[in-house]
Amino acid sequence: MNSIKSITIIGSGNVASHLGKAFFDKGFIINQVYSKTLTNAETLATSLDANFCDKIEELTDESHIYIVCLKDAIINSFLADFKFKNSLIVHTSGSIDMDVFKINGFKNYGILYPLQSFSKNKALNLTTVPFCIEANTSKNETLLTGLAKNLSNNVHLIDSEQRKKIHLAAVFACNFSNYMYTIANDILAKNDINFELLKPLIAETANKIKENSPKDMQTGPAKRNDEEIIKNHLKLLADSPSYQDIYKLITENIIKDN
Amino acid sequence: MNSIKSITIIGSGNVASHLGKAFFDKGFIINQVYSKTLTNAETLATSLDANFCDKIEELTDESHIYIVCLKDAIINSFLADFKFKNSLIVHTSGSIDMDVFKINGFKNYGILYPLQSFSKNKALNLTTVPFCIEANTSKNETLLTGLAKNLSNNVHLIDSEQRKKIHLAAVFACNFSNYMYTIANDILAKNDINFELLKPLIAETANKIKENSPKDMQTGPAKRNDEEIIKNHLKLLADSPSYQDIYKLITENIIKDN
Repeated sequence: MNSIKSITIIGSGNVASHLGKAFFDKGFIINQVYSKTLTNAETLATSLDANFCDKIEELTDESHIYIVCLKDAIINSFLADFKFKNSLIVHTSGSIDMDVFKINGFKNYGILYPLQSFSKNKALNLTTVPFCIEANTSKNETLLTGLAKNLSNNVHLIDSEQRKKIHLAAVFACNFSNYMYTIANDILAKNDINFELLKPLIAETANKIKENSPKDMQTGPAKRNDEEIIKNHLKLLADSPSYQDIYKLITENIIKDN
Repeated sequence: MNSIKSITIIGSGNVASHLGKAFFDKGFIINQVYSKTLTNAETLATSLDANFCDKIEELTDESHIYIVCLKDAIINSFLADFKFKNSLIVHTSGSIDMDVFKINGFKNYGILYPLQSFSKNKALNLTTVPFCIEANTSKNETLLTGLAKNLSNNVHLIDSEQRKKIHLAAVFACNFSNYMYTIANDILAKNDINFELLKPLIAETANKIKENSPKDMQTGPAKRNDEEIIKNHLKLLADSPSYQDIYKLITENIIKDN
């Protein structure tokens, strides 16, 4: 095999759906979609013109690659039960070591980790999404890099240790910043103020760090160590002890970094 | 006076510079720039074709409005010393009550609070920036609203209590999310990984909430309550106890909200 043309998708969640659709749109043949929940497998498979199944034994060995888009916790047990140990197989997780394939007897394997947060019902152009590639042989590395380049201009070779650090950093930059938006939204909602008001500020905050280091772009009462405002903000949060704790801890850290 | 045509800028920091430039570009006359540090006053005044001074007594009463862009902590003492108590005067702070003007004997006053994070050397189009207006009379409200509409299409009447809540929400949505980017950057830098890799994810995270509530867009290990990954991430942060504390606290809160 010189290049990958046919794919089996293992899983039916957000990553499976986004990757499946992206490859399908690029003309790849999606042979099968597997999910423990048959109706989920069917829904995704229908949109990809693919077959579907909910039993590992029903998976065929006809695909050039098997892309495992399962939750981290069940990847190992899936791999133990999947019998085509010579097939090229990858997972898409930020956190699971590549060794998981070796342990389960595979010969050709790697990682295809798209560094993006996929949400249901939110279409996404993958062209600029970084894909982190790792493989057990240089031939497989070439195959996976070629595959990823069909979707993205932003493909990188990243080993398992680096990938875990990137995933950790992404939790802060993406999941935790989104939670800060959630708190802001909640504070406004409790006071009958429209969240729309904050959207230009959120957009600009994310926009600024395209050209500048976030440390240089830090503003606000903690950055200025404005004790009076900080005290007042903590008072305003008196009825939300958990928000108060978060405000305190992050403020202390920003002050410490000054 | 039916509309404001001439302005004195009190302060020379980021807000003073951005507002001064924006009004100057719209054809307003900037009469004077005041700053305690004369060279700062001079630098800004030169770019605005204005006079400058570092003594409150040198301020003239020729302007239609005095825009106080000082740090919260020194607004009150400036107002106490500023002698033209009949002049229209506003401050630009998210946190200081409008009463600060009344207490200091003013007759015509209000708030012109631009809900944006201004950084030095980062030009900004103010057209979509929300301006929160408050005034002591309906005539002054009309004057301030008219003034703000020269710069922005997004002008709102907001009272002092609401403004404080908005400012608090902005600290979470802007200052704290930026600090999350800083931590992410730091984790990557320590591992020789380029921060560029995270930028598409940061942009998409901010972009998602334009059309969706941030609570619905929450993803990540905490959202899935993935104990294995959370445990591993805390291990990876073993040499950064303060990042570990932040990771723990935010994760606990996301899990609680599930």
